[in-house]
Amino acid sequence: MEQTKIFLNESDIPRQWYNLAADLPTPMLPPLGPDGNPISPDMLAPVFPMNLIEQEVSQDRWIDIPGEILDLLYRWRPAPLRRARYLEKYLDTPARIYFKDESTSPPGSHKPNTAVAQAWYNKQFGIERLTTETGAGQWGSALAFACQLVGLECKVFMVRISFDQKPFRKMMMNTWGANCVASPSNETNAGRKILSEMPDTPGSLGIAISEAIEQAVTDPAGKTRYALGSVLNHVLLHQTIIGLEAKKQMKMVGEKPDIVIGCAGGGSNFAGLSFPFVADKINGDEIKIIPVEPTACPTMTRAPFVYDFGDTACTTPLLAMHSLGHSFVPPPIHAGGLRYHGMAPLICQAIVEGLLEPRAYHQLQSYEAAITWSRTEGFIPAPETSQAIAAVIDEAKKAKEEGKEKVILFCYSGHGLMDLVGYDKYLSGQLTDYELPDEEMNKFLAAIKDLPKAEMRKSGKW
Amino acid sequence: MEQTKIFLNESDIPRQWYNLAADLPTPMLPPLGPDGNPISPDMLAPVFPMNLIEQEVSQDRWIDIPGEILDLLYRWRPAPLRRARYLEKYLDTPARIYFKDESTSPPGSHKPNTAVAQAWYNKQFGIERLTTETGAGQWGSALAFACQLVGLECKVFMVRISFDQKPFRKMMMNTWGANCVASPSNETNAGRKILSEMPDTPGSLGIAISEAIEQAVTDPAGKTRYALGSVLNHVLLHQTIIGLEAKKQMKMVGEKPDIVIGCAGGGSNFAGLSFPFVADKINGDEIKIIPVEPTACPTMTRAPFVYDFGDTACTTPLLAMHSLGHSFVPPPIHAGGLRYHGMAPLICQAIVEGLLEPRAYHQLQSYEAAITWSRTEGFIPAPETSQAIAAVIDEAKKAKEEGKEKVILFCYSGHGLMDLVGYDKYLSGQLTDYELPDEEMNKFLAAIKDLPKAEMRKSGKW
Repeated sequence: MEQTKIFLNESDIPRQWYNLAADLPTPMLPPLGPDGNPISPDMLAPVFPMNLIEQEVSQDRWIDIPGEILDLLYRWRPAPLRRARYLEKYLDTPARIYFKDESTSPPGSHKPNTAVAQAWYNKQFGIERLTTETGAGQWGSALAFACQLVGLECKVFMVRISFDQKPFRKMMMNTWGANCVASPSNETNAGRKILSEMPDTPGSLGIAISEAIEQAVTDPAGKTRYALGSVLNHVLLHQTIIGLEAKKQMKMVGEKPDIVIGCAGGGSNFAGLSFPFVADKINGDEIKIIPVEPTACPTMTRAPFVYDFGDTACTTPLLAMHSLGHSFVPPPIHAGGLRYHGMAPLICQAIVEGLLEPRAYHQLQSYEAAITWSRTEGFIPAPETSQAIAAVIDEAKKAKEEGKEKVILFCYSGHGLMDLVGYDKYLSGQLTDYELPDEEMNKFLAAIKDLPKAEMRKSGKW
Repeated sequence: MEQTKIFLNESDIPRQWYNLAADLPTPMLPPLGPDGNPISPDMLAPVFPMNLIEQEVSQDRWIDIPGEILDLLYRWRPAPLRRARYLEKYLDTPARIYFKDESTSPPGSHKPNTAVAQAWYNKQFGIERLTTETGAGQWGSALAFACQLVGLECKVFMVRISFDQKPFRKMMMNTWGANCVASPSNETNAGRKILSEMPDTPGSLGIAISEAIEQAVTDPAGKTRYALGSVLNHVLLHQTIIGLEAKKQMKMVGEKPDIVIGCAGGGSNFAGLSFPFVADKINGDEIKIIPVEPTACPTMTRAPFVYDFGDTACTTPLLAMHSLGHSFVPPPIHAGGLRYHGMAPLICQAIVEGLLEPRAYHQLQSYEAAITWSRTEGFIPAPETSQAIAAVIDEAKKAKEEGKEKVILFCYSGHGLMDLVGYDKYLSGQLTDYELPDEEMNKFLAAIKDLPKAEMRKSGKW
């Protein structure tokens, strides 16, 4: 019998993260400050600790994972690589489908891979408290978990509407000792200002980011910093442990993927799995690498490559990326983690290079895929993960049509046990598809037309 | 570095279940029918398929696990054995704490171990539909999952108050294609009768059992049967895969447990882990085996060994067990899976023999233990599992006091991601302890005084 679950011993865990920036054929465009000039690392110092800023700008290919971070990761890593045998059988496909199971972490997703690293580096730098924002709560709970383990205070600004509608993530954060408040709050100038103007606002990720950054940079003792759960280079770097482990595990069963798939909101789980394989592609391997997004928020598949702010409140540097505009308000799809107006700059440069083949799926397609998965493999996926599964099923069907033994590898980024309401609505026929109309997209894009232009630099090899 | 997670290859999964009935020094008392005489297997035939009834009455020590059931179990089994290194460090104990992680199944507990077996045997017997009851939803979701995998219809009667207050378990069941209705329902005579008398009743497990059994036995086509998630011999049998795997894994790291611990409501996860070690104890090994229950429902620690009905509605045969009386109404503790008036007869006979050392903890002690666990090991345990963790922490502290290198093994029966409300109440000081007063216990016990008496037969070796 062939093994369905492929485990790596703890002693075989990767000891270094992989930095794609070192191998991109064309260097990335630098982040720009408010004056339109590239920012220097020290400009980020009030927000992030210097050891993480160094990682953010590093061009080194390999960066050592400190032993103490490995010890934090051992609680759930190495994560299992699994074969979706039961789905294969159901689809009657010649494709062999493998998935890296990131749902086994305590908060149930890939997010803690970077949360524990960020918490540890902040602690090392003498920081005592981290602030962050969270939408549905996936990232906030991962950071709460990480801060508890390393002994940092954790303050989470959770978008008011989610705070009220999804109390379970907040309870999870409290269980790990974090302080989670609804945003806008009375604790910051940004929050008080908005509350005085709109006391009944449901809040937004943009407002929550502003509050979290304000609390970090205004700590008179200088012992507070801010943590971000996706998009930035150092966050993607920490996630590459996913792909590095997966590579070892695929090797254990003598396989190499023909197709690599992951869902992408800010891009961290997709980057984490795929970047070590992007390196292989740069080195000549034939491999199809597919980031998947919702048609409701088509950053990679329809938005231009521009310079834009990372947040709605325009407090971050300008990043070169595919963006729907920082004021973009995505439709209320259940895959909350994919409702981001931009995309990690590292991923965007790889797209510009032609290394990736982005694809978009409708919400209903992703739920249909999620039900098929739940009823064959048994596990209930997160709504974000379901987008990746929709692409996996399509590729497996295509392999059947073509009679080809394709090897598919994807990132099972999280479980759906905290997100069952979407399933309930889908099964009772209450969910709809969202396809962004051109006119609405253009309206949001018009708002960024006066920002500096991003140059599309590419080597043209792919 | 020592391994924190000990994985078993799929090819090393146990191929047989272990039946403790074969090794008990004194045979169990037989179940009695309404006339006070031992029942014959065929009297159970309208309720259970004959292949499971054969297991229920079997005296064979080892029973083969069919290959097709192994294939169902491979979705998540073999389950990891883990070492609670971070808790050990926090407690500064010389004890080595291992736990069998049953939270990794799709529904998040040990329940599917028997659910897939029961579903498969029913399917083999030509059954097309299973009915069951569920309180908080743990068992109902496990059976929904199992029925989906083998292709059976599944009907779950969920206690009305839980149906309304805990909608997520119902959504989980629906995701796996089951039909979950609030009990009492309009679909059975039992349900209609109660609704006509008490239209606003919150329902009870007793009523839900009556409805589930009625639908099973009144199917004119005879294609419906009933499934129970704990207490019965065949259920405990299926769970012994937990302990058999754990034994192999302990051997892989050269360990033998001095102390084995599990929480016990009906008793299935405790029995599953401990019975293979009870066999060792019968054969002369020195080993302390502790089933843990809440002080609010002190079946093993305070209730007498009697003949009593397994359900509130008095529809089952009389079972010889420790019982608080079938009309017992447990206080509303959050560990819903431990709110059962009786205890598996196999466990009770082992208690009578002196093989087990039952212990009870208060609700607040179990939540304190759960918070310690969540903030050291990182994973959030189910409220039932937390009772076991309270005992583990006590034993680890005792080992420290005595300066002894004890090896502790316990069953991590499930995660708490669907039960975060209890944590929220605990952290905000809203939880209370429940200790059953004597007068209340005696009131419930008075109701069973006219039932046949159970004889305490024991070998006196322990």
